[in-house]
Amino acid sequence: MIKLGNILDRVFGGCKSTFANCMVMIMVKNKNFISLKQVSINNGFWSYYLKLIKDVMIPYQWEALNDRVPDAEPSHVIKNFKIAAGEIQGEFAGMVFQDSDLYKWLEAVSYSLIAYPDAELERTADEVIDLIAKVQQSDGYLNTYFTIKEPDKKWSNLKDCHELYCAGHLIEAAVAYYEATGKKKLLDVACRFADHIDPVFGPESHKKKGYPGHEEIELALIKLYKVTNNSRYLNLSKYFIDERGKKPLYFEIEAYNRGIKNIHNIWGELGKKYFQVHLPVREQTTAEGHAVRAVYLYSGMADVALETGDQSLIDACKRLWDNLTKKRMYVTGSIGSMSIGESLTFDYDLPNDTNYSETCASVGLVFFAHRMLQIDPDRQYSDVMERALYNTVISGMSLDGKKFFYVNPLEVWPEACEKNKVKSHVKYTRQPWFGCACCPPNIARLLTSLGKYIYSKKAKEVFVHLYVDSELKEKISESEVNIKQSTQYPWDEKIIIDIDSKKETEFTLSIRIPGWCKEAKVKVNNNEIDLDSVMEKGYAKINRRWKHDSLEIYLSMPVMRIKANPNVREDEGKVAIQRGPIVYCLEEVDNGKNLNNIVLPRNCEFEIKKDKDLNDVCVIETDAFREKYEDWNDELYKSDVKVSYEKTRVRFVPYFAWANRTPGEMEVWVREK
Amino acid sequence: MIKLGNILDRVFGGCKSTFANCMVMIMVKNKNFISLKQVSINNGFWSYYLKLIKDVMIPYQWEALNDRVPDAEPSHVIKNFKIAAGEIQGEFAGMVFQDSDLYKWLEAVSYSLIAYPDAELERTADEVIDLIAKVQQSDGYLNTYFTIKEPDKKWSNLKDCHELYCAGHLIEAAVAYYEATGKKKLLDVACRFADHIDPVFGPESHKKKGYPGHEEIELALIKLYKVTNNSRYLNLSKYFIDERGKKPLYFEIEAYNRGIKNIHNIWGELGKKYFQVHLPVREQTTAEGHAVRAVYLYSGMADVALETGDQSLIDACKRLWDNLTKKRMYVTGSIGSMSIGESLTFDYDLPNDTNYSETCASVGLVFFAHRMLQIDPDRQYSDVMERALYNTVISGMSLDGKKFFYVNPLEVWPEACEKNKVKSHVKYTRQPWFGCACCPPNIARLLTSLGKYIYSKKAKEVFVHLYVDSELKEKISESEVNIKQSTQYPWDEKIIIDIDSKKETEFTLSIRIPGWCKEAKVKVNNNEIDLDSVMEKGYAKINRRWKHDSLEIYLSMPVMRIKANPNVREDEGKVAIQRGPIVYCLEEVDNGKNLNNIVLPRNCEFEIKKDKDLNDVCVIETDAFREKYEDWNDELYKSDVKVSYEKTRVRFVPYFAWANRTPGEMEVWVREK
Repeated sequence: MIKLGNILDRVFGGCKSTFANCMVMIMVKNKNFISLKQVSINNGFWSYYLKLIKDVMIPYQWEALNDRVPDAEPSHVIKNFKIAAGEIQGEFAGMVFQDSDLYKWLEAVSYSLIAYPDAELERTADEVIDLIAKVQQSDGYLNTYFTIKEPDKKWSNLKDCHELYCAGHLIEAAVAYYEATGKKKLLDVACRFADHIDPVFGPESHKKKGYPGHEEIELALIKLYKVTNNSRYLNLSKYFIDERGKKPLYFEIEAYNRGIKNIHNIWGELGKKYFQVHLPVREQTTAEGHAVRAVYLYSGMADVALETGDQSLIDACKRLWDNLTKKRMYVTGSIGSMSIGESLTFDYDLPNDTNYSETCASVGLVFFAHRMLQIDPDRQYSDVMERALYNTVISGMSLDGKKFFYVNPLEVWPEACEKNKVKSHVKYTRQPWFGCACCPPNIARLLTSLGKYIYSKKAKEVFVHLYVDSELKEKISESEVNIKQSTQYPWDEKIIIDIDSKKETEFTLSIRIPGWCKEAKVKVNNNEIDLDSVMEKGYAKINRRWKHDSLEIYLSMPVMRIKANPNVREDEGKVAIQRGPIVYCLEEVDNGKNLNNIVLPRNCEFEIKKDKDLNDVCVIETDAFREKYEDWNDELYKSDVKVSYEKTRVRFVPYFAWANRTPGEMEVWVREK
Repeated sequence: MIKLGNILDRVFGGCKSTFANCMVMIMVKNKNFISLKQVSINNGFWSYYLKLIKDVMIPYQWEALNDRVPDAEPSHVIKNFKIAAGEIQGEFAGMVFQDSDLYKWLEAVSYSLIAYPDAELERTADEVIDLIAKVQQSDGYLNTYFTIKEPDKKWSNLKDCHELYCAGHLIEAAVAYYEATGKKKLLDVACRFADHIDPVFGPESHKKKGYPGHEEIELALIKLYKVTNNSRYLNLSKYFIDERGKKPLYFEIEAYNRGIKNIHNIWGELGKKYFQVHLPVREQTTAEGHAVRAVYLYSGMADVALETGDQSLIDACKRLWDNLTKKRMYVTGSIGSMSIGESLTFDYDLPNDTNYSETCASVGLVFFAHRMLQIDPDRQYSDVMERALYNTVISGMSLDGKKFFYVNPLEVWPEACEKNKVKSHVKYTRQPWFGCACCPPNIARLLTSLGKYIYSKKAKEVFVHLYVDSELKEKISESEVNIKQSTQYPWDEKIIIDIDSKKETEFTLSIRIPGWCKEAKVKVNNNEIDLDSVMEKGYAKINRRWKHDSLEIYLSMPVMRIKANPNVREDEGKVAIQRGPIVYCLEEVDNGKNLNNIVLPRNCEFEIKKDKDLNDVCVIETDAFREKYEDWNDELYKSDVKVSYEKTRVRFVPYFAWANRTPGEMEVWVREK
């Protein structure tokens, strides 16, 4: 692929950092690339979320960006842009990376406009794009913090100041808006900024050997490369990745240049791992540091690996994936065991009540999984993608789309969140908006682009990674092919896939049999196929000449009792309840206080019910026991106590749906007897 | 009692803050006061510790105070005193309360000299007392930090600067040294300082309405009052206690006087509770804030309540005791559930692996319990005193007396202590000495004065609170009475008490039947007595005319399975093992890694053994199970896993003896099946 880039570079004269070059833009059809416009999401589980984001979240977030949400911390983003554009007077406020909230909102708006054209929303977006363009300096630089506050300190503290991070989100928004509307203004802004950045960094002696403190621009540049075919963006992304962690460390060099004498003091208590610079990326074998940064880096690495075919980078990605998902991930698909540094810790360290498990980190985990799937379509990636999506990602927002979790604990005791400081980062009710508001727009931009994650294509093979009531239109061997899923997944076990090809066309339809599914059946035009003979890396590969055909897929969904690896200290003697991809939890509102006293018998029968009061999710009920102790008399410790077990009906709700009713205790891992 | 003080005041002309007044010192026999000189500790469990403190800890700590311990953080205490005395040049170093380490060492030396006269040690103490006296300013003020570093800022920040705290430890040391040696020099220094402090604080308009940020001087002043009979010390202590928490808050007033505009910023995230100033002390109903400060305050309150008979203060002490020991105490007799602020949190919040449980806080809990016993000789106080002593207090030091725990977790996973920051305060090996070295000298001063805690007297009643191989010489009704315990307690169930009175004397011997003991027998001269008929508040009250008599006490010590109150989330489904007063734990060195996989069957038989390699402590062995899972294949989560139970012999060691061999995992609460 790098060769293709080079050739295109030569054909179009390479790229200089001039404004004109940004206009050179040619869409070359990436054969494996499924664009969001090809996929529509119909009725079903996800359409609720997509409508919610369009109807509630996007307008709400726009109000928040404009500081018009009562009782929410002000964002100040739009004000920052207006100040930087010279439209109003004032001081910069908010985090140094505040700009990115607007960019992420714009990215979500872009995707949403594809599914739901909306002239008014598009006009709002156009206006804010005009504002962004107005802030861009004549040399292409664009960052409200540095323009307003420290114009002389650009690129002097990559480690902490998020300039490249914000640039990355600008680029992602620009690519999305261009794809959605065909409008180039923001893309031009992004290219001009990227062209401004490119000559600043590189191996040449007059350039900075830098890379971002918070990774993000790496994966954004690949998107820009794909839409422009300008290989300098690919090369810049590759440079950031290759340089990261090399000795001498750039962050120490820039600190020294800023006059910091003891450069060892710059790292803070979490050190180099926090920034993923403890080793060059190809030598990293464990997922370390700030969880969001980690998965954004790995996503960028996977992007570059896919585009360049660099086997050493692919190997590094696989090693990091294995460590991350087989040693350091919660059953809810969240990562980050520690609030300090919002960080990963070490193998099997998965505390349920002091963890961070940031919503954004699960969004990033979906990014990483999706990219690994492009490199190697293996179920292990789509399984994790699905686990993160159905559990932590959507746990990040309330069912009404107005409140958000930043931190996603697996066990909550409300009083402890308020009174024990090791849990003070854990909230037991979702919050309206945050001063550091990374998570809500990240949920929005991921879910509005969900169509990209459902299917993928590789030569004459179409993959179905996720079961979503949706439709893909794709050209295969010159024939228009429609692939239409009808399903009530994840509540129902049945998925129907109708294939409609204009011409009879041979291709392989590879459908994922989820790892959690112990009993699957696939019928093609009512004939059951022998799954064992067609399975490869978790996908049933059905090759035939397709015309008008119908598949029926049954994925058996018994209620499962999940055990954690015996090395996970925190889950000892406990089980988590999962059905299909949905992980469940107990809530106080259903089961009373002291969830710790509930014990699940080993052979209980589960009853599945739809809950109309909870957005029609499936809840699970069963007979369990509540431990009873006689005559405690207010004592704290007693010897030789007789425990009796009182039968009690318990009710599990999907983890993602917790904290939508009366606030209270919650737990995912339940004791077993 | 306050009346007595007032009378004495009148007799001796009251006390002005002049040096001469400190010389007025009259020992009035406090009828209930048992002095350390009356008690000798003979062979047995505690004699080992007393010898260890004399032979190892006191000399080692002296080396540490002089910065001569390799690989330990320098203390700089002696240097600070020499600088303040003008003997050497240099800067103050260490914590603002560094002086107190020397005072605590001196206090321990004093008590130790009673049991083990040692001319050389006494000469060293005399020399360091000369140094302390040299540092005292002509007006009586004494604090090396303020003398060296901020001479103009005395008494301007009581909240943070520990001046009154250090004064308290000076007073305690002075009283102890006077009691041990009869030498008055340090006591004179202490009185001069107390006389300097007294006119600074009080209700009069020209005085500061202050009290210490870290309580300690309250209880110290009572000691000074008892030894001098100067009621101004009692009154000053009472003033500090009465004023605490009254509105407007003094700490806000002094901050305002220091020029701090937003006085609400002074509280830090833990707020007023950290300092126990959230309410006036008589209105406080829950034990809050920094655990050591809390129990030092409560000890001072109990002292003042006992001396003044103030029922409202007694009631407050009882409420705080109840909350502290029935809602917020670990089974090991430790307190402080949270490392941030080294603090108490809320009822039943007793996490085992992120707690603080400072050694000093258990020392303070013993102080509090001991004082409550004087107010009301009820077993609930001596039971907690014993629990703290035998478990957390001595867990604070290694069996060789050279290394110390500050934090006393109930569950340790060494890797988590190193890599998960919420546990970074938890060490899994004892440390040689600390920059902030409050705990080691606190252990030393408590254990060297253990004799004071074993017995007490109230009119014609002698109490035996603790079973220690020891002897008390006391005058009762003009007769010399010897009460001699012979026992191998806590390992052995039998205690023999020989009473030897010069004249036949009637008094009540009240012997504690521990709360943990379900089956006790007491024989007087070989005749078993009917315990039920003589029990009162947990004490068997044996009234008779004593001459040469012998008691045999049997306290049945089966291995007990302790359950925590069902509200304690962290101990759900688990038991702690206790025998007699000793709480046990599992260690990796005996039981292998992954202690979490060990499950204790409900009906196991325990075997008790002496362990020669572990200082002859009793260890407990039993058959338990280790959970086994087949074919984990490196997976993190699996559904419907079959668990098998492999029989395994496990070995419990006393909690206080953990971490004396190969470092590794430890747990007190073990799962039950």
